[in-house]
Formats: sequence, structure tokens, C-alpha cells
Amino acid sequence: MRFTSATTSDGVVERDFTLGEITGVLWSPEAGSPHAPLVLMGHGGGQHKKTPALLARAHHAVTTHGFTVAAIDAPGHGDRPRTAEDDQARADLRQAMMDGDTEAVASVSVRYGISLAERAVPEWQATLDALQRLPEIGPEVSIGYGGGITLGTGIGIPLTAAEPRIAAAIFGGGFVVHDGLLEAAKRITVPVQFLLPWDDQHVGRQSALGLFDAFASAEKTLHANPGDHRTIRWTGVDDGFLARHLTPA
Amino acid sequence: MRFTSATTSDGVVERDFTLGEITGVLWSPEAGSPHAPLVLMGHGGGQHKKTPALLARAHHAVTTHGFTVAAIDAPGHGDRPRTAEDDQARADLRQAMMDGDTEAVASVSVRYGISLAERAVPEWQATLDALQRLPEIGPEVSIGYGGGITLGTGIGIPLTAAEPRIAAAIFGGGFVVHDGLLEAAKRITVPVQFLLPWDDQHVGRQSALGLFDAFASAEKTLHANPGDHRTIRWTGVDDGFLARHLTPA
Repeated sequence: MRFTSATTSDGVVERDFTLGEITGVLWSPEAGSPHAPLVLMGHGGGQHKKTPALLARAHHAVTTHGFTVAAIDAPGHGDRPRTAEDDQARADLRQAMMDGDTEAVASVSVRYGISLAERAVPEWQATLDALQRLPEIGPEVSIGYGGGITLGTGIGIPLTAAEPRIAAAIFGGGFVVHDGLLEAAKRITVPVQFLLPWDDQHVGRQSALGLFDAFASAEKTLHANPGDHRTIRWTGVDDGFLARHLTPA
Repeated sequence: MRFTSATTSDGVVERDFTLGEITGVLWSPEAGSPHAPLVLMGHGGGQHKKTPALLARAHHAVTTHGFTVAAIDAPGHGDRPRTAEDDQARADLRQAMMDGDTEAVASVSVRYGISLAERAVPEWQATLDALQRLPEIGPEVSIGYGGGITLGTGIGIPLTAAEPRIAAAIFGGGFVVHDGLLEAAKRITVPVQFLLPWDDQHVGRQSALGLFDAFASAEKTLHANPGDHRTIRWTGVDDGFLARHLTPA
């Protein structure tokens, strides 16, 4: 893991890093917080690790809870090169949306989402390994998945199912539910907070509710707010969820 | 309004009152909090104004937020006499539950719930009038409906629809949804927090989701937690909801 830049604003240190092909960023309190809980955040489809909504939530997590927050670009997103597959999937998705073809949107999203998750899960795991080798983070740190909409959930669910280091997770609707995602959800037993935009034009409400149903977690809470595909609103959502379930330094 | 007793515990003053046939209780901070927001709480079917869950939430609202909290017994509940109709409805409900006859449970609940709400809404309004004549509460106080499960929602929804003084409301699932309730929900425009026990054995999930859908409020949040008919869990629910929407003294 190689840090390429460090800036500070509003009490938050932001350090960009690369790890092989992975491009990522780490936020932490300027005042320092060794071994503070580490929260992983995932961006939405077509967005990147410093997309404004993610940046705002990362700053909030650092300044309010003293967490360390990490985000990485998904394959083909942000600072990472796009493959021919990435370009093709984006073109297909754009076309399907222009055609108003909901089924094609869903079909491309599922196909591309599965491929992205297959690449992203081991990348997150390698990133976790590297972060835990940093002295200020370390092997004993408590880790949560801090959510993200659409793709951030499409990657976060298989990651949380595969990764025993994640002790609690926030997911959002907005990702087309497919069988693999349901199977992964059934393997998740840690506390889950699930945010649902009530009026998603791309993802059926019933399939999102079915995904919430599938989590094997004894503690899981669904929060639904009015809003469409890209507008998960964090209003009214319990902000203490991760703090309750992650062990302080 | 006549106060019949006053006790203090854990920093909370509890005053029982009667208003005509209505029996009620008022909780407020021992330190005083003139003109603090007033929160109305409703108990569940078969329960009463000081049922343990309600008492715990009332104490929390007083000690954490400095609210004044009022609860009254529903007709035929708590310290109030039962009519022949009350006795009959309870007997019918018990029988239907023993028979495991879900449809009969729903049908009796709806019939009795409508009758109780018709009596309880004007009682709440008279109670509000009387409370606002108290110098420590007054005509300008900000008022919220602080929720309650089952019957507390069956009464709270028509009350909030009818009562312009209520500025925000918390409702819970667990009450069989009927057309009158849906119609009342459509007339509600204030911010709503809606708690849903995900595994209610008496109330279909889809009908509860339909009720959430019906609120005309621009701001409404659904919180669903695993749990059955009598176990609305307040875990993970945004505790700041009423404080955000009620105007401090």
C-alpha cells in the first residue's frame, strides 16, 4: 500500500493510496485515533470513491464518531482504467435507460454487477489486509461496512457474507436483486441496517423487501424513506448503529 | 381536569388526572420545563396508560428530551369501566385467538377498534384542550403523537388526521388496516415515523406497507425490525424524530 497524497480539511485527514491496481482513500481524525473502528464505504454505480454523498458521510463518520473510513474505486470506476467489458456494459446500460426498457436495465445491471462484485470482493479483502498492517489500524480493529447505494450494496453484500472481519453492515436498496445476492444475504448474520428508497423506479419494492427478509441477522432494521433510485435519504436513520456494534479502540 | 396524585421518581414527576370519565397521567421533568413540547402516547389493545413499555418510553422522553408526556386510558381500558360492548369484544377476540381463526381476529379487531377510536379521538381532543389550559403547558405548545402499538395506532391515526395541533406523529404497525384507517392516513401530512414488526402474526405485512404508503406526508420513514405482534422494537429507530419536528419551549 502506497500513500500518494495527504490533505487536511475540517479536522479530517484524507490520504489517497494505491494497492496494486486498486485506488483508494483513507479518512481519519486530524487529532489521531489509533485503532479506532474502521468503516468501509462503497460508492454507487458509475460514481467513485470521493463522490460527494460518500465524502459527506465519511467526514461525518470521522468527526462525529472518530472512525477511520476507507473507500476504494470499484473496478472500471473513478481513477481506474476501464476494460472493454466496462465500456460495453456502460453503453448497454445507457441505451436501455434511453429506451426506457426496464427489463434490459435490470438484466445489464445484474450481469455487470455480478462481474464487478467478483472482482471487487477480493480487492476489498486485500485492502483490508493492507490497512490492518498499518500501525495506526492494526489487526485487532473493529470493522464495519458503512454502506452505499446501488453498486455499494451489490458489492457490500457478497463482501460481508465472505468476510468474517466485518462485524456490522449498512446496505441500501437501489440494486437489482438477483439470486446470488439473495444467497449471500442468507449467509449474513451480523447486525444489518438496510436503507430503502420507497419509490425506486428501477428496483421493485417487493424484491428489495425480499432482500431484507433474506438476511439471517437476528438484528436487522429496515429504514424506508420516500425517494427514487439515486436518493437514499439518511434522514431519520439511526446514526448510532455502527457505533453500537463496533468496539471502540 | 383534576389531579388526583403526584409522585416523583428518577427525576420525573408523574401526575394522575381525571377529566370527566377520562383517566390519564402526565409526566414532566422534576426540574420543570414550562411550555416544553407535549407528547401524547397511546397504549396497545388490552393494555393501559401506565403499561411498562409506555412508562419506559415516557420516562425516556422526559429525561432525554425534556418533553411533557400525556397518556390516557382508552375507553374500556385501564382504570375505566367496561361496557357490555367492551366485554363482548374482548370475549370474541379471546375466542377467535383460541380458535386460531385469523380472519375472525381481524374482523373483531377492526369492528372494536373503529368503535374505540370513535370514542377516543374526542376524548384526546378534550384532554388536549384541558392540558393547554394548564399554565405550564399553554396554548402555544408544540404537540406530537408519540406512538404506541396496535390500538395506540388505531386511535392515533384518526386523531392525527382530525387534529391540526399535532405537528408530527409516531405510529406502529400491529393494527389491522381497514379502509377508514387508510382514508385517515391519506389526510395526514405532518412528518410520520412508522414502526413495523416484520413478523406480525395478526397483520399482513403488505397491508401494513400499504398503510405506510397511504400517508400524504412528504417526510415519512418506515422502520422495520424483526418481531411479532406485540414486540415493536425501538432498536435502531431515530430517537431524535420528535425533537427535530417539535418546537422547543
